[in-house]
Amino acid sequence: MITSKDNETVKHISHLLKSVSYRRSCSQFAAEGVRLCTDGVRSGFTPQIFVYTSSAKEKYPEEFDELSKRALRVCEVSREIFQKISDTKSPQGFICLYNILDKRSFPNRIYRGGSYLALECVQDPSNMGTILRTAEALGIEGVILSHDCCDIYSPKVVRGSMGAVYRVPFEIEEDFPAAIEQLTKSGVPTYASTPRDAKDVTQINFSGGVMLIGNEGNGLTEKSINACSVRVRIPMRGRAESLNAAAAAAVLMWEMLR
Amino acid sequence: MITSKDNETVKHISHLLKSVSYRRSCSQFAAEGVRLCTDGVRSGFTPQIFVYTSSAKEKYPEEFDELSKRALRVCEVSREIFQKISDTKSPQGFICLYNILDKRSFPNRIYRGGSYLALECVQDPSNMGTILRTAEALGIEGVILSHDCCDIYSPKVVRGSMGAVYRVPFEIEEDFPAAIEQLTKSGVPTYASTPRDAKDVTQINFSGGVMLIGNEGNGLTEKSINACSVRVRIPMRGRAESLNAAAAAAVLMWEMLR
Repeated sequence: MITSKDNETVKHISHLLKSVSYRRSCSQFAAEGVRLCTDGVRSGFTPQIFVYTSSAKEKYPEEFDELSKRALRVCEVSREIFQKISDTKSPQGFICLYNILDKRSFPNRIYRGGSYLALECVQDPSNMGTILRTAEALGIEGVILSHDCCDIYSPKVVRGSMGAVYRVPFEIEEDFPAAIEQLTKSGVPTYASTPRDAKDVTQINFSGGVMLIGNEGNGLTEKSINACSVRVRIPMRGRAESLNAAAAAAVLMWEMLR
Repeated sequence: MITSKDNETVKHISHLLKSVSYRRSCSQFAAEGVRLCTDGVRSGFTPQIFVYTSSAKEKYPEEFDELSKRALRVCEVSREIFQKISDTKSPQGFICLYNILDKRSFPNRIYRGGSYLALECVQDPSNMGTILRTAEALGIEGVILSHDCCDIYSPKVVRGSMGAVYRVPFEIEEDFPAAIEQLTKSGVPTYASTPRDAKDVTQINFSGGVMLIGNEGNGLTEKSINACSVRVRIPMRGRAESLNAAAAAAVLMWEMLR
């Protein structure tokens, strides 16, 4: 049993939970909690390391068996250490490290009639998690992310997505507007969600395409709006006249797939 | 200028930001940040106390004038004290205390054709804030809350709602299922969102009514489901087969008001 915070594995997990650049350089991410850990295994991922506390082993014996059988390495850590590395207030006592999959190939496989989402500079991990969860539930085929979106493997995104990060295909684009422009030129309908000079989303006959959602405060960039074939907006009343990015994304994906 | 954390006003604000029961016993709540403070005034609220730091006064001179003219009492506090009472990591330096309005009367005024939302035991303040913001933007006439929902005046809800708490009429029901049953009996269409034995939301011809959304983990109670005239569900694909409460609420309100 590991009881020291200076242990290399403990430091590794701690860094994976905290640092984007560390996750990228190791090409690993950490999933915490019973549901997220087992969800990873059931979605075809192999735990590179499975870390647990003895009380969690007692409390979730079936899940413990499932995870420890599939994991390449299994480590028990003390409750104190787990509390220190955990990203949550009341940790359940399971963490799995998974390899980041190389999913950078799907836009070449975008097919006509399929419905996709493209996120530009979405910054809030809770929004990102919710959007991915909604995308999976409503049947989105894949998500294109601009390179300046928040990290899809941050603990908050993994948790908020309810495991959708394991299953929804995505790709990170270095030049987001150029990627969208290319799709538009190849005949894929691309929809910029923006309040200006836009059609009401209810006026559009969707048959697949790519729906673009922009940054929480600033929306989509001009470049990305101009790269799209159509501009859409959600008709709104009320004084606030704005929706949170995750709520707007839910309504737009829903209309696209309705 | 107040520089002591033992000052009575400082303690009062601090408690209002932290404690539901204190907010209820004082019948006041605190709004923090330039936008939320001015939004309150522009929505017809009077700041009982307006607290600011000198750097915020310099940075936002117009908003400072607007708020200090309307406030019954104006207090400068030191940056150190503001940092201590603030609910945010990088405080902007403005806090207003507003009186809680007695909004416990609108269900008597529910009219046919109007669209309403009813929330049962929604626990997460971020969800609650987003739902209220979405409700206002889409044109919901009012919100019924069960007594065990999280407090609508908690700092996270006020912030997440983008000021919708100032403007969306709401009522807290001690006996939520009974209130819904009464509405159903009086001929108001009441919709229980539940995955079991429910119609697809796209199959329903809405002409107003009340949409019920349940707790994040457990959904609506049996009692509340049975009190409704119709059960609705959002058709879903994907493996997760669940939407976050705020995303589900967005889609359901959208369909109701589309």
